Formats: sequence, C-alpha cells, structure tokens
Amino acid sequence: MDARELRFAVEELQHAYVHCIDADRLEEWPDFFTDLCLYEITTRENVEQGLPVGVIYCDSKGMLRDRIVALRQANIYGPHRYRHMVSAVRITGVKGSTVTAESNYAVYRTMLDPVNYGHSELYSVGIYLDTIEIEQGVTRFREKRVLVDTARILSLLVTPL
Amino acid sequence: MDARELRFAVEELQHAYVHCIDADRLEEWPDFFTDLCLYEITTRENVEQGLPVGVIYCDSKGMLRDRIVALRQANIYGPHRYRHMVSAVRITGVKGSTVTAESNYAVYRTMLDPVNYGHSELYSVGIYLDTIEIEQGVTRFREKRVLVDTARILSLLVTPL
Amino acid sequence: MDARELRFAVEELQHAYVHCIDADRLEEWPDFFTDLCLYEITTRENVEQGLPVGVIYCDSKGMLRDRIVALRQANIYGPHRYRHMVSAVRITGVKGSTVTAESNYAVYRTMLDPVNYGHSELYSVGIYLDTIEIEQGVTRFREKRVLVDTARILSLLVTPL
Repeated sequence: MDARELRFAVEELQHAYVHCIDADRLEEWPDFFTDLCLYEITTRENVEQGLPVGVIYCDSKGMLRDRIVALRQANIYGPHRYRHMVSAVRITGVKGSTVTAESNYAVYRTMLDPVNYGHSELYSVGIYLDTIEIEQGVTRFREKRVLVDTARILSLLVTPL
Repeated sequence: MDARELRFAVEELQHAYVHCIDADRLEEWPDFFTDLCLYEITTRENVEQGLPVGVIYCDSKGMLRDRIVALRQANIYGPHRYRHMVSAVRITGVKGSTVTAESNYAVYRTMLDPVNYGHSELYSVGIYLDTIEIEQGVTRFREKRVLVDTARILSLLVTPL
Repeated sequence: MDARELRFAVEELQHAYVHCIDADRLEEWPDFFTDLCLYEITTRENVEQGLPVGVIYCDSKGMLRDRIVALRQANIYGPHRYRHMVSAVRITGVKGSTVTAESNYAVYRTMLDPVNYGHSELYSVGIYLDTIEIEQGVTRFREKRVLVDTARILSLLVTPL
C-alpha cells in the first residue's frame, strides 16, 4: 500500500467507527477491535508520568462488550447523543500489516432530557493514538488510546469516545 | 469508480458546498443541486416518527432560489458568518450514477453586529444524509437531508446548513 | 499531479502542520515554510479594505523563528494546549509547482493552569488561504494567510494558528 492507500484505509476505519458511536449502535463497537486489543482513555500527563492506568482501560474485546452491557443496563446518566469530528489523520509508522496513526478529534454532546433537550456543547477534544491491523482487506484497531485534552469532564464519561 | 475515487468526488462536492455558504456566495448555492431535488432540515425524531415535513423543506431548485431571495430581501436577522466543518464522509451505497453518503458536520456562527462583533459560538451539529448524482464528471446533490442534533436553535435558522 | 494527488499532498502538509502546533513542537514550526514566505493572521474586513498589516505579519523564516523564541522566553501567558481541526481542504489554483488552497479550521484551547485545568473551549474559527510550493516531493507554505472569523479574542494570540 502506498501512502494514499494507507491514509484512505485508516480514514475509512475512523469514519465508520465514529458513525457507529454517533448512531448509538454501540453493540457493534467492539467489532472495530482485534480480539487482543487495548482501548484506553487517559491524559497526556498520565502518559508522560508513566502511569499505567487512565480513566478507562480495557485490554480485551470481552471487556469492551462488558462496558456496553453495563452502559445499557446498569449506568444511570442523562440521555444524550454524541457527534464526532475527526481531523488531521496522519500515518506515523508502518511495519508489515501494522500501522500507527494519530488523529485529532472533537466530540459534541447534545442532551435529550426534557429540560436541556436539543442543547449541544463541546464535550471533549483530544487525540487518537491508534495501532491498526490491516489484514486481508479488513482494518481493525489493535490499540486505541484516546488522549483527552479536556480533563475536566472525564468523570461523566459513559459512552466511548 | 473505485471506493477512493467515490469518496474523493463526494468530498470535493461537500467542500465546495460549505465554502460557498461560508463565503456568503448564496446565489450559487442552488447550483449544487440537480433540477429535481430535495433539501430538508429536520430532526432524527421527526424522521423516526415518519413525520413528512421538518423545519425546512424545499423540493425543487426554484424553491432553493426563492429561499435565497427571501433571505436577501425579506428576512430580518443579525448579520453573521458561518464556518462549516465536515468530517467522517462515508459512502453508504452506490447504484449506477447515484451515491448515498453520510457526513458529520459542525457549524460555528460568528456575529457581525456592533455589540457581539467577532464572537464565535457553536451553532449546529448533526449529520448530512445525501443522495448524490455523478454524471459526466459533474457531481450534484439530488437529496440533502440535514439531521440536526441541535434542536434548540432551529427557530433562528436563516442561512442554509 | 492529478486532482486527487494534489489534495492529498496539501492535506498531508496541513495535518503535519497542525499536529506540530498541537504537540507544542513549535521550534519545528518555521520549517513548514519556504525561506521566502509570508505568515499572516488577519480578518476578512482588513483584507477587503486593503489594509496591509493584520494582527500578526511575518515575511521571512527568520521572523517566524523570532516569534517562537519570544513565545518561549519573553511572553507571559497562561499555560494552554491547542487542538486544531482542519476541514474542507480545497484546491483553488495550480500553476507549475505552486498550488493555492483554502481550508476551514477550528481551534480549541484547553487551559493548563491550576484553576482552569482541563477546561476546553472554542478559541478561533476561520479559513486558511495558502500558497504552497511542491518541489521534489517536499511540500511547504510560501504564504499562509489565516483569516479569522473570531475577531474578538485576537489580543490573546500567542501560539500560532
């Protein structure tokens, strides 16, 4: 794959991923990952200090599925909708079928409860640091590390970023 | 056209479309549509309930032109400028020369009146659900359905999204 | 280069440029420009009135380097992080190895001081009007004109947009 094909493949994955979340098809979310995988939400400060565990840490597809079950059945939170913008997708390394990439993101949250219905606001900005496997035309995340700039509202995190 | 050529063509159309609006060249806006066309701004709730008419509903190029004439001559509103971000353009179907696509958008509005001059804020986020005709190298919207997340400020809608 | 190759090359430059700023690798920032160059931040009003000098005006690579030295050593400002979104990259002209392009941008600022730590907000939206040189596979800005919509907060400008 040349540089253009690589970025196209990574963008296709990112775009499908964010539409899956924004459309609330969260049961399909784990399928964007390989069986052995890492999904982590953390801050740059955590990473720079070598702290191993961030805000969210899932290191298997089963943990990703559990997270969605918990979100659907156990968690209490105000109904909302996400809207993701992804920008500046950039390939940072290629080794065999493994690609690393960085992409900026911004997520807006629109509340759906009666009081705040239809009010949108900036929810989180940051960077995706991804390790992606491209195998036989199928593209999946082996690692998705979400480094949030917006450290303040992490306690409210329910839906994946 | 392969997948890369298709997304490129759709992105070129989306990018030209948003720059046209952001540069206030609204008289050119109807030319992004085929003669028989649909331009609609609505909410997901409306769509899910099968309600036929959203906030704005234009089903011909003439109605699009009328809208711009009204905006220039009849409507009273505070002077403002839009800035569109489009992200995650994704082809969802292809049938002959007809392509369907979904794209996330965020629009910022900057006020130009003396009191609020130069203040920018999030105005609307949502998704474009488009049906696009590609004919002899010319790409146009046959349908552009704007599903807004930001239901709250729809009453202020003047400029097209 | 065909239209797809051109937009790819320009996007690669824009993406690398914004990741450089967002990662605070500002010492590398001047290297995105040719030796003879123009970097300007201004408003559309300034441009339309033919006013020559905007908010920031640097017409050599040396001036760009000076700006970063000043920022690191002399300026007093609250610690912050930027996050750039770039969208709707559009080639507007090609002449030999020189390409002109327009791209919408939105920048979010996250404060890093103890009081506001981790709070993100919209900082600036506007348009990049760029003249880009593509020579032997190296892509650089000969001119980068940043036309801000968000006129209000220009006085706080420290980090380049």
